[in-house]
Parts: sequence; structure tokens; C-alpha cells
Amino acid sequence: MLFIDLSNIMSEIKRICLIGSGNVATHLGQAFFRNDIRIDCVYSRTLENARQLSTKLDAYPTDNPDLLGKHSDLYLICVSDQAIPTIYERIVNKIPASAIIAHTSGAVPSLPIVEKAGSTGVFYPLQSFNKERELNLETVPFLITAQKKETADKLMVLAKKLSAKTVLISDQERLTLHLAAVFANNFTNHLLNIAEQIAENNELDFDLLLPLIEETLTRIRHTKPSLVQTGPASRNDLVIIQKHLEILKNNPTWSAVYSLLSQSIMGQYFGRESE
Amino acid sequence: MLFIDLSNIMSEIKRICLIGSGNVATHLGQAFFRNDIRIDCVYSRTLENARQLSTKLDAYPTDNPDLLGKHSDLYLICVSDQAIPTIYERIVNKIPASAIIAHTSGAVPSLPIVEKAGSTGVFYPLQSFNKERELNLETVPFLITAQKKETADKLMVLAKKLSAKTVLISDQERLTLHLAAVFANNFTNHLLNIAEQIAENNELDFDLLLPLIEETLTRIRHTKPSLVQTGPASRNDLVIIQKHLEILKNNPTWSAVYSLLSQSIMGQYFGRESE
Repeated sequence: MLFIDLSNIMSEIKRICLIGSGNVATHLGQAFFRNDIRIDCVYSRTLENARQLSTKLDAYPTDNPDLLGKHSDLYLICVSDQAIPTIYERIVNKIPASAIIAHTSGAVPSLPIVEKAGSTGVFYPLQSFNKERELNLETVPFLITAQKKETADKLMVLAKKLSAKTVLISDQERLTLHLAAVFANNFTNHLLNIAEQIAENNELDFDLLLPLIEETLTRIRHTKPSLVQTGPASRNDLVIIQKHLEILKNNPTWSAVYSLLSQSIMGQYFGRESE
Repeated sequence: MLFIDLSNIMSEIKRICLIGSGNVATHLGQAFFRNDIRIDCVYSRTLENARQLSTKLDAYPTDNPDLLGKHSDLYLICVSDQAIPTIYERIVNKIPASAIIAHTSGAVPSLPIVEKAGSTGVFYPLQSFNKERELNLETVPFLITAQKKETADKLMVLAKKLSAKTVLISDQERLTLHLAAVFANNFTNHLLNIAEQIAENNELDFDLLLPLIEETLTRIRHTKPSLVQTGPASRNDLVIIQKHLEILKNNPTWSAVYSLLSQSIMGQYFGRESE
């Protein structure tokens, strides 16, 4: 047998300090805990938030970045993108040189490697997390980035404990996937939101659209979206486009969104842009 | 018991002539057939297409609008929006005065009522149909429109045989729901298509995004889209927006879509528009 179990030949990540107590920290923390990975501490600027999560994970809570402890193998920064550099600067010189510091963001580049401090990496679960919703992490792709091979290996081994899908990628690739995710998730949700408002502004039941939305989703499990485009723009039906714009005439933003997306569809299917 | 079964006190629609042989005609025809409603004939401009569908429905095929027969209770026009007026003009004076002529379009207004001819209505299943995909019509909302109450009642009774969700609405309400459906289905599909292209242009696996897309659409079964908006625009993260636009700089249409949707989200969450 030539297969070598990496986890036997290198030191695994066995103890984690979670920096953050929001949606990502909550989902990852609980998944680590279920997989018998020890959570040493949970840090949050708000002690009460740290406490709420740490209680579930049998960890100690703190709101003081000087008190993260020196015994964790991984210091995992799960805070908002804007807050990552600040908390990183604050803790980087206080953790053991043998540890890894990683963040969980799709759009923030790898953390700089600082002499004396441990190695750095990215541990990015490509999913939209919400504390209130249960989520099966096994199907969530984990995208790993690290400059050092040993760090990458350790983060991959850790990710494989949570998920069946793990990929090693570069900062630029992660940012590009994050951009695609903004189109696929944030922007589609916004369009559903506009649909919801159009229905409700006209006292129509948004739930009437749910089977259609469900079919849209189900279809792309089997067929690529490029192959199933339908609607007035995809058949260049300017009469109906005009009728729809008439309904939207008092909302310049929605009219602009409607026109631009119709033009984008026509550009793709007819090789030109048209009103 | 005060409940009165409508189907006992008025003549039901028992025989249907299908005008069209595309996605909608195929799905509706098969559902009628399964519910023991007789399909008299299937008309298509292309006899072979009529034949393919009529064989499944035990009906006779024709490519001649003069040969639709005089015995159907409902002449159901399931052709593309643009083709509806032409075929309507062609057949309206040839069908029995006791029959209903209805179309199945979300965006086309009710057909004009012509003296001598039967009454008119709309029988609109709010769903995106594809011949190749099985679909459970029971969950599809059927939106019914008719000027005469008796016609509306008959079409409602017919719709209830296929679906658990039937609603009587006006032309304007149907057009508004159709507009909302364009946002919820056609435009979201186009955004998924852009996400697919961004991934593939950069040799990244689009399938990595599928769990995220699934979560996006599953969530709205439980929570309204307005309550779960996430992403850079919803937290006014101009740094990441700028990085994403940098990746899109060679595609003016996608850049414009990205900017406009981000502005629309910011306008909603921060009450202002911003780049």
C-alpha cells in the first residue's frame, strides 16, 4: 500500500482558539467540537457574545486579546473582513511561533508572515452562514491557502475532518470565486428581494413565486444556467419588456436593473445590446 | 352542509383542444390526460411536432387550424407570446360559441371577446417549463383570468384538478406577477450564468458554488430575502467592491451589472447610492 495518511506523519491541529463569535465562528466552532477538536478559547470584543459561544464549546471566553493563551495550534480569525487586519496586528506577536494564524474570509488576502510569529493561512468555507440556521458542513467546499506547504497540509487535514470537499487555491483564485459567489448569492438574493417587494407593493402573494424559484434552483443541479435561460430578453420580446418597464416607471433603480440585465441577456444570446 | 360542489351545477370542461406542442402544451397536456380529461386534438404549425405530443395523449394531430374540430369545451392556446394574436384571429370564428378560448401566458392580456365566438380566459401556470424535465404540477400556482364569472368558474374547476394552488386574478395582477417572476427566475438565472462564466474563464470549478446557491434558495423557503441580504454591498465594504470591479475591468457589461446591483443594495440598506 503506497497510501500515506498525512495525519500520522505530521503534527495535526488539535487545539483551536476562535477569534470571533459570529455566524462563521459559531458554525465552525460547533463542527470542530463535534469532531473532537478542542476549542481552547473564544474571543469577542463583547464578553457576553464570547461567553454564549464558549459555553457550547466547553471553552473559556475572553474579550481581552492578550488572554488568548499560548497552547492552541491554530488561531482562527472569524471576524468581519474590515476587522481582520486590526485583530491580526493585535495578536500576532503574542501567539506561539509553532502555531498557525488563519482567517476565514473569501476576499481578504493571506495574512503577512511576521518573523517570530507562527505561519499564516486562509481557511475559507464557501457558504453563507447564519447562526439561526443549521447547516451541513460536509457539503461545504473549504478553500485553503497557505504559503508554507506544511501549513497548507495541516489546514487541509483539518478541513477534511469537516467537509468532503477541500481545495488548495491561491489568494487571487479565492477572490475570483468570492466574486462569482457575490453574483450567485448576494445579487440573486437581492433580485429575489426586488421580486418580493414588487409582489407586496401590489398586494400579491410572494409565495406564489416559490415553486418557480425552487425550480430555478433544482434545474442548475442538472443543467448549466447558460443552457436554460428563458424570459422576454432571451427571446428578444421588446413588447413585453416595454410593458414591464411601464410597471417599474416610478422606481428608477429597479428600471435600471431591469434594463441592464435584459441588455446583458440580449448581448449574450443575440450578440448585441438593445433596449 | 352548505358546501356546494361547483362541478355538479355547471357544465365542466371535459374535452380540450391543445393549440401548440411546446413545453407548456406538453406538461399541461400530460397532466390533463392523467386526470382523465380528454384531449381531442393537438395543433402545431409542424405536423411532426403535433404528432409527437398527440400520440402520448391519444389525440389527433393537425397542422391546419381549420381542422381543430367543434367538440372541445376549451381551446387552449399554448404558443409563444408573439404568436398568440395570430393564431387567435385564425381560429376564433371557427370554434363553437359554447366553448372557451384561453391562452397560457403571463404577460399577454386577456383575449378580446368576439361576438359569435365562445368566451375567453387565461389559464396561466406560474412556472418555468421544460419538456425534458418532469415537474409536479400539483405545487404550481394556476392564475386564472376571465371576464365572465361562468368562464372563470369553469377554468378554476379545471385548474383545481391539476394543482392545489389556484388564484383568480386580473390581467394587470398577472403581468405584475410575471414581472416579479422575471426578477426571481430569468434574472437570477442570468446572474448564475455570469457566476458560471467568471469561474470557468478563470479555470475554477463552478460546482464549488452549488452548495452556496442551494442555501440561497433554500433559505427563502423559511425567511424573506429582505432579511438575509449579505455581501460587500450590504455592509458597505467599498474596499472589496473595488477589488471585485478590478477583476471585471475587461467586461463593461458585468462591471455595470456589479455596480448597479451593489448600488441598489446600498440604496436599500443605507438609504443612499454610492459607488
